[in-house]
Amino acid sequence: MTDFICQAQAARKASYDWALANRSQKDQALMAMADQLLESSAAIIEANQRDVAAGQASGLSESLIDRLSLDQARLSAMATGLRQVASLADPVGQVLRGWRLDNGANVEQVRVPFGVIGIIYEARPNVTADAAAICLKSGNAALLRGSSTAIHSNRRIISSLRAGLVVAGADPDLLALVEGDHQVTSQMMRARGLIDLLIPRGGAGLIKSVVEQATVPVIETGTGNCHLFIDADADVEMAWSIIVNAKTQRPSVCNALETLLIDQSVAPKILPMLVDRLSQLGVDLQGDQAAHDLCPQLNLVPDDGWDEESLRLHLRIGLADGLESAIAFIRQHGSGHSETIVTNDLTHQRRFTAAIDAACVLVNCSSRFVDGSEFGFGAEIGISTQKLHARGPMALSEMTSSKYVIQGSGQTRR
Amino acid sequence: MTDFICQAQAARKASYDWALANRSQKDQALMAMADQLLESSAAIIEANQRDVAAGQASGLSESLIDRLSLDQARLSAMATGLRQVASLADPVGQVLRGWRLDNGANVEQVRVPFGVIGIIYEARPNVTADAAAICLKSGNAALLRGSSTAIHSNRRIISSLRAGLVVAGADPDLLALVEGDHQVTSQMMRARGLIDLLIPRGGAGLIKSVVEQATVPVIETGTGNCHLFIDADADVEMAWSIIVNAKTQRPSVCNALETLLIDQSVAPKILPMLVDRLSQLGVDLQGDQAAHDLCPQLNLVPDDGWDEESLRLHLRIGLADGLESAIAFIRQHGSGHSETIVTNDLTHQRRFTAAIDAACVLVNCSSRFVDGSEFGFGAEIGISTQKLHARGPMALSEMTSSKYVIQGSGQTRR
Repeated sequence: MTDFICQAQAARKASYDWALANRSQKDQALMAMADQLLESSAAIIEANQRDVAAGQASGLSESLIDRLSLDQARLSAMATGLRQVASLADPVGQVLRGWRLDNGANVEQVRVPFGVIGIIYEARPNVTADAAAICLKSGNAALLRGSSTAIHSNRRIISSLRAGLVVAGADPDLLALVEGDHQVTSQMMRARGLIDLLIPRGGAGLIKSVVEQATVPVIETGTGNCHLFIDADADVEMAWSIIVNAKTQRPSVCNALETLLIDQSVAPKILPMLVDRLSQLGVDLQGDQAAHDLCPQLNLVPDDGWDEESLRLHLRIGLADGLESAIAFIRQHGSGHSETIVTNDLTHQRRFTAAIDAACVLVNCSSRFVDGSEFGFGAEIGISTQKLHARGPMALSEMTSSKYVIQGSGQTRR
Repeated sequence: MTDFICQAQAARKASYDWALANRSQKDQALMAMADQLLESSAAIIEANQRDVAAGQASGLSESLIDRLSLDQARLSAMATGLRQVASLADPVGQVLRGWRLDNGANVEQVRVPFGVIGIIYEARPNVTADAAAICLKSGNAALLRGSSTAIHSNRRIISSLRAGLVVAGADPDLLALVEGDHQVTSQMMRARGLIDLLIPRGGAGLIKSVVEQATVPVIETGTGNCHLFIDADADVEMAWSIIVNAKTQRPSVCNALETLLIDQSVAPKILPMLVDRLSQLGVDLQGDQAAHDLCPQLNLVPDDGWDEESLRLHLRIGLADGLESAIAFIRQHGSGHSETIVTNDLTHQRRFTAAIDAACVLVNCSSRFVDGSEFGFGAEIGISTQKLHARGPMALSEMTSSKYVIQGSGQTRR
C-alpha cells in the first residue's frame, strides 16, 4: 500500500469517532492546534525560510514569494483564524427538516459530516491551517495536498496541528499532509471510498485537471469573470463608487470587476468621465468599438478578450443596447461568479436578478462583498461557481452532508 | 455540429425563459403533456410493440420484456404521473435564508433551477415521462438518453410530450431525446457548459461508466446493499414482520434487504425459527460460519459474497458479537443506502443512528419506506447514495440549485 492509501485509511478510521464529537471536543482541539502553532513559531518560520530560499533560487515571482512567506504576524493570524473557527456554531446535528409519515413513523433529515475531505491547493501555507480548521470543525477528517513550493512549511505546520489534536485527546490521523509526485494527486482524485469530497483551490489549470480526472465528488472553486452593468437611470456617482471599489480595492481576487457594461443611451454622458477618472487611478482600460468611438484613447478589446479573469488593474468597457443586451452579454461571457447591476429602475432590478444565472447577483453594491467573512459566515473555504451542493461562498455548513433517520414502531409497507 | 450539441444548445436557450416560468405555466405544460400522451396512446403502443418484438428477437429476458412493455393501463399511469407532478408545490423561488449585512445590504439565498439536466437511463420507457415531468416542474430543461431497446417507444413518447409543450405555449426544445451510438453518451458526460447536472439511472455498470468518464457534475443513484440488525433485546415478532416486508414485498428494488445480522446472544433462540419461516416463504438463504453452526442447512456465504445487491429472494445471515460488531460489519459492507436496527434499547438506538453513515438509517421499521412517494415527496427521480448535494430519495427540491441575491444602496467594501 502506498503512503497515501495508508494516510487515507487512517483518516477514514479516525473520522468515525470524530463525526460524533461534541462541539466542545472540536473547539478544544482547534484551540490546542492554535496553541501548538504559536509554540512552534520559530521552527515553522525556519522551515518557511527554506521554502522561500528555494523559491527564490528557482525564480518564483515576487508576488508568489510574498504569498509563500510567513512571519510572526502571519502565524499569529493563522492561530487567530483557528480560534475564530472554534467560536463558530457547530453545523453537525442540525435537524434540517422532519415530519411524520402516514403510518406513524417519524422522519428527520439531519446534518452530518462528509467523512474525509481532500483539499488540493497552491502556494499559500496559511491555507493549511484554514482548511484544517474548517474541515475539523465540521466533523470531517482532512487530507491536505499543498504545493511542493511550501513543503517544508506545510510539514512543520501539520506536525504542530497534529500535536494540538493529541493534546486535546483527539486522533492525530484526522489530519494529514499528502506528499509525493503528481501520481499521488491523481490517486487522490480517484480515491473513491476513501475520500468523500475533493476541493481544488487554485488556478484554472488545477481546477480543470481535477475536473477531468476526478472520480470522487468535486466542488469547484471557480474563476470570477465579473460584470457590472450601469443601467440607463443609474445613480452615476453610486455607480462610480461601486466600480472603484470592485475594481481597485483588491484587483487580484476573484470577486473583483472585469468588465463594465454601460447602457448606450447614457454612455455619451458618462463614459468620458469614467474613462478619465479610472485612468487617473492607474486602471488599464480597453473598450469595444462603440466605447472606442466615444473615447478614442481606449484600445480595443481583442475578440477573445472578454472571457479572461484579469486579476490586475485592468478593466474592459462595452456599451449595451439596453438591459436585455447586457443580460445576453453576461450569459455569453460571465463565469457564473458575481454579476452586478446599478439601477434605480425596479422592473430592471427584478429582471436582472431573475435572469442572471450566477452564484451571486448584486444590486447597487460592490461585488467585493461576495466573501464568506463579509457574508458573516466567519470562515470560508472558497467560493463555488458550480451549481451542485454549494454555490457562492462556502463555510462550515457547506462542508456537511445529511442523512435521514426514520424511527418507527414496527411499520411495514403495504 | 453534432445533433447532440444542437439539441443541447437549443435546450440551454429554452431553459432561460423556463427558469422564470410561473407555477401555472409549468403546470399547464405538464397537463397538456399528459393529454397528448393519452391522445397518442395508439401510436405509442404501436411503436412499443416494435421495440418489444425486437427485444424478443434479440433474446431479452422475460423480466426485461415486461419492463419494456407498454399497454393502455401503463400509459394512463404515465399520464397520471405527469398530473401528479403538476399538483406538487413549485420549489423555484423559495427563499432558503436571508439576512442583513452590517453595512445595510440584504442577502437572500433563493432556490433556482439547475438549467439543463441530462438523464441517462435503461430500458423502462415510463421513466421518459417521469423524468421529463420532474425536470420541467423544477424549472429545468431535460436531455433524455434512453436505452436503444426502447428507442421507438421513447421517440413517440417524447414527440407527444413536446407536442404538449407546444399546446401550452412553451418551447418544445425544453425536452429532447438524445439518440446515437455510445460516443454520444460520452459527449453528454463531458458537455461542460451545456449540461449542468447529469443523473445516471440504471445498473452498477452504467453508474461506474458515468462516474469514470463524466466531467459535468453527476449525482449517482446507487445500489442498495441493505442490512438489518436484530439487537439482543429486539421484539422478535416485530423483527420478523419487518424482515418479511423488507425482503419479500418487492425483492427486485434497491431498498430491499440483503443481509440480516443477529446479535449472537439471542441467535440460538431465534435463528432456527427465522430460517424455518423464511424457507417456507421461498427465500434462498445463506449464512456465515456461526449461523451455519446453529442451522447446518444454511449454505455458507462465499468470502466475497457480502457486498452484492441481490435484487431477488435471497438473504444472507450473519451473527454479530453485539452492536459495535454489527456497526463495524455495516461500515465494511454497506453501500450507504438504507440500514436498519430492530431494538428496544434506547442507548443502542442512539448509537446505531449516529454511527451508521448511510443515506437512511431506520429504527424498528421497514427499509421499503425509503422511497420518494413513501416520504411524501409525490415524485422521485432516484435515491442518491452519494453525499454531495442530495442524499436519499430525490424529488423536486433536489433538482434545484440556489443563488445569492445581494441588494444594497451603494455599499462598498472597506
